[in-house]
Amino acid sequence: MSTAAAVGYDSAMRLAVEHADLVKGSTYPNPPVGAVILDRAGRIAGAGGTGPAGSAHAEVVALRRAGHLAEGGTAVVTLEPCNHHGKTPPCVDALLDAGIASVVYAITDPNPTAGGGAARLAAAGVRVVRDVEADLVAAGPLREWLHKQRTGLPHVTWKYATSIDGRSAAADGSSQWISSEAARADLHRRRAAADAIVVGTGTVLRDDPTLTARLIDGRLAARQPLRVVVGLREIPSESKVLNDDSRTMMVRTRDPAEVLKALSDRTDVLLEGGPTLAGAFLRAGAIDRILAYVAPILLGGPITAVDDVGVPSIARALRWRYDGIDRVGPDVLLSLAPR
Amino acid sequence: MSTAAAVGYDSAMRLAVEHADLVKGSTYPNPPVGAVILDRAGRIAGAGGTGPAGSAHAEVVALRRAGHLAEGGTAVVTLEPCNHHGKTPPCVDALLDAGIASVVYAITDPNPTAGGGAARLAAAGVRVVRDVEADLVAAGPLREWLHKQRTGLPHVTWKYATSIDGRSAAADGSSQWISSEAARADLHRRRAAADAIVVGTGTVLRDDPTLTARLIDGRLAARQPLRVVVGLREIPSESKVLNDDSRTMMVRTRDPAEVLKALSDRTDVLLEGGPTLAGAFLRAGAIDRILAYVAPILLGGPITAVDDVGVPSIARALRWRYDGIDRVGPDVLLSLAPR
Repeated sequence: MSTAAAVGYDSAMRLAVEHADLVKGSTYPNPPVGAVILDRAGRIAGAGGTGPAGSAHAEVVALRRAGHLAEGGTAVVTLEPCNHHGKTPPCVDALLDAGIASVVYAITDPNPTAGGGAARLAAAGVRVVRDVEADLVAAGPLREWLHKQRTGLPHVTWKYATSIDGRSAAADGSSQWISSEAARADLHRRRAAADAIVVGTGTVLRDDPTLTARLIDGRLAARQPLRVVVGLREIPSESKVLNDDSRTMMVRTRDPAEVLKALSDRTDVLLEGGPTLAGAFLRAGAIDRILAYVAPILLGGPITAVDDVGVPSIARALRWRYDGIDRVGPDVLLSLAPR
Repeated sequence: MSTAAAVGYDSAMRLAVEHADLVKGSTYPNPPVGAVILDRAGRIAGAGGTGPAGSAHAEVVALRRAGHLAEGGTAVVTLEPCNHHGKTPPCVDALLDAGIASVVYAITDPNPTAGGGAARLAAAGVRVVRDVEADLVAAGPLREWLHKQRTGLPHVTWKYATSIDGRSAAADGSSQWISSEAARADLHRRRAAADAIVVGTGTVLRDDPTLTARLIDGRLAARQPLRVVVGLREIPSESKVLNDDSRTMMVRTRDPAEVLKALSDRTDVLLEGGPTLAGAFLRAGAIDRILAYVAPILLGGPITAVDDVGVPSIARALRWRYDGIDRVGPDVLLSLAPR
């Protein structure tokens, strides 16, 4: 006999989001989805996220963990369950086979091939509830995938570290470390979930970064994003970005549109370039999210984190909106989306 | 018969803080204090803040509102009740006369003349609880007053508005408005609570500001801070800062220490100068709080909100800590304190 309490759909969805975040970056070409199974009494019976390509979708992972407790229960899923045969059978079949009575999901599948799951479930007598915590999921685990579905282009997140006065280094060029250990750990977690990290040749020549995703103890993360170096200048063959820790792609252009084209099979791209490359992407409208790690320090001086963004006067300012504000250790992480 | 519920000491203290905030700026030379009286059953019976100088302290205002309900009840006060005859009799006497059974306060009075109230209350058989929500009060309504008690100097808050990339204007100098209407309303509320607003002659010559505190409808607030113009340059006699809306003091120096000396009878000083004056104050260690209104826009270009702060290398960065992060309309307000 269990004494666990029943949970609401919102709480269950937030747990599903956590499971989706855990698998983010490892599910290509499938979206990173999370699922929670509640038993008849509304208690958590199982949970999971999408497996690597070709393996089980989140619903199936969670159903397996729930076992017979799924019968008459509720599936809470971040994305409408799929209704098509890809490398695995439709999730709708798995839910019906398990005897699920209700399905609750956040986001309707925009993909005409995979979509229609909700309609088939409803036709089979399953109670269907949609749009639960939809904003959380759309801004969270499915953000990049939804962008790709909508635009056909990868989602580009521009990340930079800055002092509160907008500097990326002190007057003499020294900058290690502007942001805290906690902020660097947060960044490496995001790198491990990304499909590609983009920098310019200038950053390689100046900083010689490795551009890998590392764990807190310094070891390489299990999964490494593609490293992408953009620009027309040559970089030395001994540059760290060319080492064996991950693969590296050279894109010989300065045009953001051509960079996006070269990365068209990717979904989640992290731009870590310096002011020149970031400025070019900003001017081209090729950035979908800004993540600014703002350290509580003042530097002054000539080295700003952002240079020319093509704004002659205040009326032409690039206007965004905050879609997240978090503390990361001693720093603040500002997340912005286009307005 | 009342059906109101009893409230906890923490909740009552937060209400006392709200009352203290309401009178902030109007209580000189007394500190802005808030008080809440709970009846025997722990229900709110009265609340209030310190009146203007010479009139009642917060405890007395709240006791009056509670009337006979105070008997056997609890006084919840942001500052230890005073025990000395100033322009009004000691609050300790008023609390004992009203038959208060318990006194709960946040901050022990550091002032040797006014202090000792808690000891006298305890000696008279009153139950005394201290340090309730002390951090909230110390960072909130009593922040500037406590600083003055500790250092003998006014507390200086440097306020600036910036884009997320650290600019105060676009490349052509245009800047109206970087921050939102909500941020400007927040600033005018802070101006109305301040004792003085400080700018440099450069700001007067460039922007010709009025430097008044205004209500949302544009009318002048009931209370206006002293306007202080710092620097060696002359300003035109028709400058708006010299109009009749408030008083104005000229301080003919560029030395922050001399400015503080000229304002030594003030408690809460708001520095609104441009990069030159702010840089001088930062280099001199004369700023106790930074308030940055950060608009979700990018400007790029040469006009930064902060210029030279005397930092040659990252090891010498001016290191602060965040002590508050709030959304103000579409903007973010970062509050920082010295580390």
